[in-house]
Amino acid sequence: MDRALPLAGLRVIEVGSFIAVPAAGLALSQLGARVIRVDPVGGAPDIGRWPLGRDGRSLYWAGLNRGKESVVLDLAGPAGQATLRRLVSAGGAAGGILLSNIAGKPWLSDELLRQDRPDLIYVQVIGQSDGGSAVDYTINAASGLAYATGPEDGPGPVNQALPAWDLLAASHTALAVLAALRQRESTGEGAFLRIALQDVAASTLTTLGYLPEAHLRLRSRPAHGNYLYGTFGADMPLSDGGRIMVVALTARQWDSLLELTGTARAVTALEAALDADFRAEGDRYLHRHVLAALLRPWFAARSMEQAAAALGGSRVLWAPFRRFTDVVRDLGQGRGSPVVAEMAEEGFGEILATSGPVRRGDASGRPARAPRLGEDTDSVLSELPGSGHD
Amino acid sequence: MDRALPLAGLRVIEVGSFIAVPAAGLALSQLGARVIRVDPVGGAPDIGRWPLGRDGRSLYWAGLNRGKESVVLDLAGPAGQATLRRLVSAGGAAGGILLSNIAGKPWLSDELLRQDRPDLIYVQVIGQSDGGSAVDYTINAASGLAYATGPEDGPGPVNQALPAWDLLAASHTALAVLAALRQRESTGEGAFLRIALQDVAASTLTTLGYLPEAHLRLRSRPAHGNYLYGTFGADMPLSDGGRIMVVALTARQWDSLLELTGTARAVTALEAALDADFRAEGDRYLHRHVLAALLRPWFAARSMEQAAAALGGSRVLWAPFRRFTDVVRDLGQGRGSPVVAEMAEEGFGEILATSGPVRRGDASGRPARAPRLGEDTDSVLSELPGSGHD
Repeated sequence: MDRALPLAGLRVIEVGSFIAVPAAGLALSQLGARVIRVDPVGGAPDIGRWPLGRDGRSLYWAGLNRGKESVVLDLAGPAGQATLRRLVSAGGAAGGILLSNIAGKPWLSDELLRQDRPDLIYVQVIGQSDGGSAVDYTINAASGLAYATGPEDGPGPVNQALPAWDLLAASHTALAVLAALRQRESTGEGAFLRIALQDVAASTLTTLGYLPEAHLRLRSRPAHGNYLYGTFGADMPLSDGGRIMVVALTARQWDSLLELTGTARAVTALEAALDADFRAEGDRYLHRHVLAALLRPWFAARSMEQAAAALGGSRVLWAPFRRFTDVVRDLGQGRGSPVVAEMAEEGFGEILATSGPVRRGDASGRPARAPRLGEDTDSVLSELPGSGHD
Repeated sequence: MDRALPLAGLRVIEVGSFIAVPAAGLALSQLGARVIRVDPVGGAPDIGRWPLGRDGRSLYWAGLNRGKESVVLDLAGPAGQATLRRLVSAGGAAGGILLSNIAGKPWLSDELLRQDRPDLIYVQVIGQSDGGSAVDYTINAASGLAYATGPEDGPGPVNQALPAWDLLAASHTALAVLAALRQRESTGEGAFLRIALQDVAASTLTTLGYLPEAHLRLRSRPAHGNYLYGTFGADMPLSDGGRIMVVALTARQWDSLLELTGTARAVTALEAALDADFRAEGDRYLHRHVLAALLRPWFAARSMEQAAAALGGSRVLWAPFRRFTDVVRDLGQGRGSPVVAEMAEEGFGEILATSGPVRRGDASGRPARAPRLGEDTDSVLSELPGSGHD
């Protein structure tokens, strides 16, 4: 634990698998909290989740549990359940904090746990709003977003590859913990909070206007490929097989794109003929196909190197479409994100690991190692008052 | 402001447009903080972002700024900039908190602002790790994820429709504020923190194993359609044109899916012939095409109603693929997420709005209204000591 980190001293118990709860604990751990992940004997169902390292150990599990302590208890039996209750209650003013994604089990109910620790902060992540089972991939299907993703002429819904609902539920869970803690420190009162993946999706898609738009217009925004909704952004193939994402949100960026590509005259003629105003981003969106078609020859005549050199001197927002291996190569050459680093780790050899997304000024922390399942059981239980553990 | 909310009393100044900074302020506001958004005269470039309501007012801007106070200052001139500095410094122990996405402007530099408020908490959201310009859509292109999204035989990269990097940067920004505040309350020290969209992407894709896998195997995970990586999840077309996402993460869920669809015998024969173990999720992923092909006839012979009735009695994780209009219809019938509600709002008529993803037990809050640009300028500036505002 780094004493300089802002959450140093805080003590969080985490009982949950896959992404949402472990990623919430990870975010708190990356800010300095002590996070104790409790698993059943043999591990939770995520213990072997792909991708795997060379020895068969899960890169996914390691990534999501870095910096945590790992405790294994027989959660199927009353002795292990009683020990968990003691773990949750312990820790004094900086303890009594529990994250879980387990609902409907009497031994992990808020009612029971609050008897031992009346000021408990318990954040429970659930799937559907009504408590029904769901995972990121079913929530996403039901959210409406899959029909708004992918090619304009696509044959059907496209899932997002990123489990974004899990990840957002995770960071809102971590946020809810710190908010509740602030309140507890001022009033002495704990909290039982619930974050449903379905609510995260519905809330997010309302905030950004997807659902209000469907409600107002009685139609769903369709998939529109790699175009950007409501402004100008498009995917530009290059002469060497590469592709670039080009974005012009402001009139200045748009003017710069036209100047760069030598299309100002053609675009101005078109603008007049179509009675459009391309300095307004809505009109750039409405006419995105013809505008992209006018811009594409400039890109199709250039390699990535040539296009990058020219774009680098413009105001246009742009980036190459890259593959994960390209990102890894950049990291290896010191040109990538400073919050990701290669480190040596038992069972993996050299592995990429992160210290989390927050930097203090220009400094980023060092990634923590991942525990082995259960390696901290003895040390954590020996801290319990009068222990003797089960 | 609801005094029962955990962040009641906190005072946050927000100077930023589009998604990351406004969504960070929104998350804090939904937990009870007083959030004052400061815009330049006429509004920031997001003031008219699509989708628009009937009167041309932005649903997007309204959604991202609910519950906030809106202040307009002439940020291009020294008087407005000086007023902003006073706003940032004010608020006592619960103030001195600033979120912005504006880097490289001397009048909003940490150095300058910290002169007036040495314990300032300043979280700056930037694009690229090195401070270069970027937006969600260019970060996503460069992250590697677009080549892992969309159909298996797709012609190129597919952007995610959700600006997930902005949203994750937002919730980590809100989290960083509360972590830094906790530290300030114990040590008296402020913090200057930076969150780069590029770091959020690199960190997230490292945690989940995408980048470590590419680093280890020297190849990038390809797009795999609506299948789920490393386990069994697939998209099932129905007889009536509907589609269902079916997921079996555990052996129990998998057994239930086979029982439901009457495919246990065929799958068992296949398992032996292929020397596979389909109770292991990795093997279900490796053989996903043949397994999905065996399961599909059961779905193709059923309507949504029939499939839903049968799946409802199983252990299988599933959901219909829906459109935004389906989600809106469910909300109207009281069957959707309780954190989204229809409310009457000036300039929009009836509009969908959210109170945020966190519920206290079963209770969810009421959505707040969105301010009109600048409507709180006078009242907020009149609170400044000795004011007289610009």
